[in-house]
Amino acid sequence: METPSFLRRLFGNRDKAGGPAGETLALCRKLLSERGEASGATLARETLAAWRRLDGTGRGEFFNALVREYSPSPEAVMRAAEAYRTGPDPATLAQLQSVVEPLRQELFRRLNTAPEGTATLVAMRRELLTRLEEHPEWAVIDADLLHLFRSWFNRGFLRLERIDWRTSANVLEKLIEYEAVHEIKGWDDLRRRLQSDRRCFAFFHPALPDEPLIFIEVALTRELATRIAPLIDLAVPVEDPERATHAMFYSITNCQVGLRGVSFGNFLIKQVAEDLQRRHPKLKTFATLSPLPGFARWLKGARERLGADLAPLDTPGWHEAKDAAVLGERLSALGAYYLLHAKRGSDPLDPVARFHLGNGAALERINTLADLSAAGLKRSAGLLVNYVYRLKDIETNHEAFVKEHRVIAAGAVEKLARDCPLAASSAEA
Amino acid sequence: METPSFLRRLFGNRDKAGGPAGETLALCRKLLSERGEASGATLARETLAAWRRLDGTGRGEFFNALVREYSPSPEAVMRAAEAYRTGPDPATLAQLQSVVEPLRQELFRRLNTAPEGTATLVAMRRELLTRLEEHPEWAVIDADLLHLFRSWFNRGFLRLERIDWRTSANVLEKLIEYEAVHEIKGWDDLRRRLQSDRRCFAFFHPALPDEPLIFIEVALTRELATRIAPLIDLAVPVEDPERATHAMFYSITNCQVGLRGVSFGNFLIKQVAEDLQRRHPKLKTFATLSPLPGFARWLKGARERLGADLAPLDTPGWHEAKDAAVLGERLSALGAYYLLHAKRGSDPLDPVARFHLGNGAALERINTLADLSAAGLKRSAGLLVNYVYRLKDIETNHEAFVKEHRVIAAGAVEKLARDCPLAASSAEA
Amino acid sequence: METPSFLRRLFGNRDKAGGPAGETLALCRKLLSERGEASGATLARETLAAWRRLDGTGRGEFFNALVREYSPSPEAVMRAAEAYRTGPDPATLAQLQSVVEPLRQELFRRLNTAPEGTATLVAMRRELLTRLEEHPEWAVIDADLLHLFRSWFNRGFLRLERIDWRTSANVLEKLIEYEAVHEIKGWDDLRRRLQSDRRCFAFFHPALPDEPLIFIEVALTRELATRIAPLIDLAVPVEDPERATHAMFYSITNCQVGLRGVSFGNFLIKQVAEDLQRRHPKLKTFATLSPLPGFARWLKGARERLGADLAPLDTPGWHEAKDAAVLGERLSALGAYYLLHAKRGSDPLDPVARFHLGNGAALERINTLADLSAAGLKRSAGLLVNYVYRLKDIETNHEAFVKEHRVIAAGAVEKLARDCPLAASSAEA
Amino acid sequence: METPSFLRRLFGNRDKAGGPAGETLALCRKLLSERGEASGATLARETLAAWRRLDGTGRGEFFNALVREYSPSPEAVMRAAEAYRTGPDPATLAQLQSVVEPLRQELFRRLNTAPEGTATLVAMRRELLTRLEEHPEWAVIDADLLHLFRSWFNRGFLRLERIDWRTSANVLEKLIEYEAVHEIKGWDDLRRRLQSDRRCFAFFHPALPDEPLIFIEVALTRELATRIAPLIDLAVPVEDPERATHAMFYSITNCQVGLRGVSFGNFLIKQVAEDLQRRHPKLKTFATLSPLPGFARWLKGARERLGADLAPLDTPGWHEAKDAAVLGERLSALGAYYLLHAKRGSDPLDPVARFHLGNGAALERINTLADLSAAGLKRSAGLLVNYVYRLKDIETNHEAFVKEHRVIAAGAVEKLARDCPLAASSAEA
Repeated sequence: METPSFLRRLFGNRDKAGGPAGETLALCRKLLSERGEASGATLARETLAAWRRLDGTGRGEFFNALVREYSPSPEAVMRAAEAYRTGPDPATLAQLQSVVEPLRQELFRRLNTAPEGTATLVAMRRELLTRLEEHPEWAVIDADLLHLFRSWFNRGFLRLERIDWRTSANVLEKLIEYEAVHEIKGWDDLRRRLQSDRRCFAFFHPALPDEPLIFIEVALTRELATRIAPLIDLAVPVEDPERATHAMFYSITNCQVGLRGVSFGNFLIKQVAEDLQRRHPKLKTFATLSPLPGFARWLKGARERLGADLAPLDTPGWHEAKDAAVLGERLSALGAYYLLHAKRGSDPLDPVARFHLGNGAALERINTLADLSAAGLKRSAGLLVNYVYRLKDIETNHEAFVKEHRVIAAGAVEKLARDCPLAASSAEA
Repeated sequence: METPSFLRRLFGNRDKAGGPAGETLALCRKLLSERGEASGATLARETLAAWRRLDGTGRGEFFNALVREYSPSPEAVMRAAEAYRTGPDPATLAQLQSVVEPLRQELFRRLNTAPEGTATLVAMRRELLTRLEEHPEWAVIDADLLHLFRSWFNRGFLRLERIDWRTSANVLEKLIEYEAVHEIKGWDDLRRRLQSDRRCFAFFHPALPDEPLIFIEVALTRELATRIAPLIDLAVPVEDPERATHAMFYSITNCQVGLRGVSFGNFLIKQVAEDLQRRHPKLKTFATLSPLPGFARWLKGARERLGADLAPLDTPGWHEAKDAAVLGERLSALGAYYLLHAKRGSDPLDPVARFHLGNGAALERINTLADLSAAGLKRSAGLLVNYVYRLKDIETNHEAFVKEHRVIAAGAVEKLARDCPLAASSAEA
Repeated sequence: METPSFLRRLFGNRDKAGGPAGETLALCRKLLSERGEASGATLARETLAAWRRLDGTGRGEFFNALVREYSPSPEAVMRAAEAYRTGPDPATLAQLQSVVEPLRQELFRRLNTAPEGTATLVAMRRELLTRLEEHPEWAVIDADLLHLFRSWFNRGFLRLERIDWRTSANVLEKLIEYEAVHEIKGWDDLRRRLQSDRRCFAFFHPALPDEPLIFIEVALTRELATRIAPLIDLAVPVEDPERATHAMFYSITNCQVGLRGVSFGNFLIKQVAEDLQRRHPKLKTFATLSPLPGFARWLKGARERLGADLAPLDTPGWHEAKDAAVLGERLSALGAYYLLHAKRGSDPLDPVARFHLGNGAALERINTLADLSAAGLKRSAGLLVNYVYRLKDIETNHEAFVKEHRVIAAGAVEKLARDCPLAASSAEA
Repeated sequence: METPSFLRRLFGNRDKAGGPAGETLALCRKLLSERGEASGATLARETLAAWRRLDGTGRGEFFNALVREYSPSPEAVMRAAEAYRTGPDPATLAQLQSVVEPLRQELFRRLNTAPEGTATLVAMRRELLTRLEEHPEWAVIDADLLHLFRSWFNRGFLRLERIDWRTSANVLEKLIEYEAVHEIKGWDDLRRRLQSDRRCFAFFHPALPDEPLIFIEVALTRELATRIAPLIDLAVPVEDPERATHAMFYSITNCQVGLRGVSFGNFLIKQVAEDLQRRHPKLKTFATLSPLPGFARWLKGARERLGADLAPLDTPGWHEAKDAAVLGERLSALGAYYLLHAKRGSDPLDPVARFHLGNGAALERINTLADLSAAGLKRSAGLLVNYVYRLKDIETNHEAFVKEHRVIAAGAVEKLARDCPLAASSAEA
């Protein structure tokens, strides 16, 4: 295979079996050869074992070689493209696809045949992602892994499982480790979140049986929850789930860094809503209680335009001060304004808003003084938001959001935003 | 997306929602649109349901539209190839891959999110394959499905399962249905093949839990089996498996037409050999008892060069005649010659020989009057062959076979072939 | 321990380790000794293995010894009874119970600790029962085993399982073997009975995981089934179970001879009715289609009082003759008369009637020419009966039946019985 | 049924449906009647629900009534005993057994048919046992429950399961709760005990799927463990279990108070030893590291005969003082003397010694300063003992122990005991 000239330039001559990654790379070459076919999963296992033994330097060298040795040759691509243009038929198309697909993908498919292959490849991408900023040329490897993972972790291959106190400790300890929204402080904390008035569901893939890919935590309640404490405090009494009318999604966590970019949340939230609806026909409202993770940072930038109104925020413990309610109202209005008008491109700046609105939910309500944990105050100045999933509106909401970048919000939220002092000034970019 | 001009020429203008496949195609377009993202698996389910309702004509129209609407545009491909040539970097490579990959693959990935999605796609390809000869242009669809299936049915995602009398009837009846080498005549026949001196293993994929993908039948014996009857006759007494020294692989069957081209056999046979070795350390020999499915046809062509020697073969019941042994010897020699010298390109003409030799097995022995069933006489004139898997030789055998097209055979087999009357005449192409 | 004198008389002196059962009996004695406690399940396993090696004679000797050696001493019983009478307190009661309980029960409990212990004890009782008529003195062993089995196979320890085509062949072949009412002719026959408009449930005990204890077959239909053929014929099309209004229990089979006298049917039929009701709320009627297994024999006795009316019955194929309908009507009336008036003691002579009426069902309808299989004609002259289970009436029906020996029957059945020629003559004993 | 006169005297006239237990008792009577048979498990469920609603007073009344109403009549017992004496045959024996068995046993069997029936009966006995000292007349109920439980929880019905980090949290938290020997301080502590160089096994009964009955903790080590800290400290590194030569049983806990008197430990320890031996053939020694729970109390009594030698023991922290080793040696000798000579009847006073010696183990070694936890110092003055299980000696050791009350001990232990200052004085009772 011809090496693209830019790659030659970038990396100079290839390492001659030398360097710490030499053994791993030699095994990779063998795995892609004829001998590799015969030895099946055995050679794949050895290759991954060699890779795992590499330190950071060795892995860096390994990634460099993957870029250098296994990228498509521009000249061959041109020839195949020209052949397809001249005579577009199944054979020229097949040849084109074969030339364009980096040999890395076949390498990864063969590595995947080893025991624990999938887990190791996911770990490989996790490492790659943490170092990608320093090595932008590795993006081609990332693209190949992401392409494969999107195919392998297709919704059709995932199992939705309920997590409760009967679940293996092996899996449960991962919830404690991974939970990203409202920290789980230990086993007692976890148990409260798994009692009969709570639900937790996760997607699993058969090749990673002990690893949740994503999980969601739900409280079954009798009204729209507007504060987080009543949902996660240990002391809150357990309610009868059969009397619940609201399913409150109060936390959703992607677990695997190595699967970043493979989207599970949309599928998860909808299937959980459907399943809960079927088993608990009394449930009428499916809503989230969500953070605004970008709010605090945005607010910092906005404060110069706001005068002294928010000065008390700088005092630690402001949320317990006498005038907390007044400050809370101001934050409400700013939160509404932030969600409706702060943008990244045409979409909301806030990533959680992008996620739920992109899924077809509507922005229902802003709650102030709603998350008084240290993380909640720091992240969202204590605000939490309710997004509502109305099954019949999901498609049209989603379409309005994707095509027209329109945020579907309750009238009250829109009014709050209009009342915000920033609304008077010019519209935000 | 621009339609390749050859496709426009081939098919004329697209059907405007009309035609029997109109609804299915409209759903496909929606599934690939933004609304499709939001409605998740629901829309995929509807689309597959609509497809299943189509008759043969409708499905033909559907396949035509898949070729026409979802093939890459030659012009766009040229532009992306040129951009990559000019500035080969992660971005131009990503763009090139995106343009070259037919949108069909994304369509199939989204269809796969539906319940039973994988099973329906496998069924879709089965239908496609049965009609492909008449519609060679559908080969592009076939290539896309095969590409996805090779990724999805990667060895790393398969479960090896032992099949025995505790297995679900649901699965067992499929063995009866699929068995391709030595017919299973019913449940009594099946039970004999699952008793304590027999083994049966299959690969399963989590998305097709009741469907074996491939299965292998093994007899644990005390000597190299040279005839099939003692392995499958109901009347043969059950032996103590702990005393066995030989594992005889006497049947291997690919079950899913829709997965043709995804290779399972190599992995299966090696893992089964390893597992059996571990659990039964007394096993010393791992060998097959295999048919020569192309022998009878080849022999027909060869007979004009052989004179009257084989004339008795034309008499039904020849294998029970007095001189059957003499004829058998002649067939042995011809069988050896056939396996060593009859070629398709540089490889053996016989598909079973290609499979086992390609896996790294060696051709050990030719057995005459070894399969006297109607199918066995018709297919291989009663011959069966032993291929032997010696774990330590597999890699080098495979390499010799793939690189030098060399068939590793026992001396006795080579001698038989030399003694064959055809050997005197010119070498066969 | 003193041997009861009647036993000494019956059997003479005990075998001195001699006789074929000598080894087994020696092991039993050891198992009941102190050494037995220490060696735990090992000794129990050896003892059962020794027992299994015995032939019929040896086992007979074994049973004789169990009677002779392990029955309570009448003198010791008297002493304990007297002590209890004089000073009834926990200690004297405990002593009394200990003396009265045959040591056999402790022996069986210890044997049960072996692997497969329960299965072997069930097999032991099966053998005992088949020979009990010749050896009435073995009834004391039978009583001990039955006492233990009633405790061990308590409903609280049973698992209700649905049987369908996903069930293990191991279990399914037992349905074919055991089915006692409407023969299952093979696997195709069985499959029809397990399709989506049929249900089959069985009780299992954890210690006998592959052995159904009792199973029931149900057809989900849209009307009261009055003939068996439409329920079991292979050719009958599969109906949509969601539209069914009637659950027809058409066969119920006790599987384990060794568990005779442990009653499962009452629990099974009620739990199945409850479960079906919960999952299929459209089901309104729970009824049987049942044979009258004692009818033909009773009819034979009754015919002398009936004149020539039933003469055509003696012609083979009578049910296909022109006047079959007329004869059928006569049989209907006789069937009604038989069920209402033919008695064993105060209860119905017919065992199936005793079972369903004893469970609290009502006699709903007599169907003539309803089972035209050879067995059905021979057993019940082609008659089948519907018993109906109305959940709200079960308790009162049962009580009326048990306390007042009253058969709850539909008016139409009572009228049929009154119209029967036998009704004119004197009431039957 | 006639009420035994002593019972009438004890309790006076029966409560007329009055009293808090009235409803429960009425349901019990119905359950034992004919109507009870028909309503099956439903009535049993109601009865147990009513019982669970009772407070302590109500349950006391309930137990009183069980004694009063359901004990065998002394007169009827006398008549049956006399009949058996006069004509001992199967019928008179059956009648005798039926009269002697308290109706309570049938009541409990029927209650057991309810969902959760077994669990409730076990809870009932737990309550009974805690109050038995105040109500010695309830011993007859206890005897009935124990009789049933010994039958129901027969080893043949138990499942041995390995407990590890894959086990359900539901079960794991019970280990933390129940562990009786070396406290498990939380989930981190538990995890260390379940890592790859540790083993934990438990018996389960199918009717109590989430409740371990007994569990044992094992450390796989490379030498005889003589101190507890290296086995349970969090900081101890995990060793390779494949290199272990010793299986150290360092904790065994009976979990269910309600099953007191049903013996599981003997079976558990032997099966675990056998299973470990089979899977890890390198294991040569199976030994315990056990406390002497009665030592501290016995020592208190013995100290007056010992003079001032043990005075330092009264100083908290004595085990960390300079002369701890000297004191440790004295305690060693006293421990040996205690185990060999302190008796309850003819058996060792120490309950753990009775258990292991009764199982056929030998007393191998006394370890001083071996358990320095607060509980260990208080219970056994820091001593721990090794009992060794040698499979080939178990039967004879057990027999010597049971028949001759002989303690099999290593020579070194016997010498220690002889050197003890107490040995000089007279032998202990």
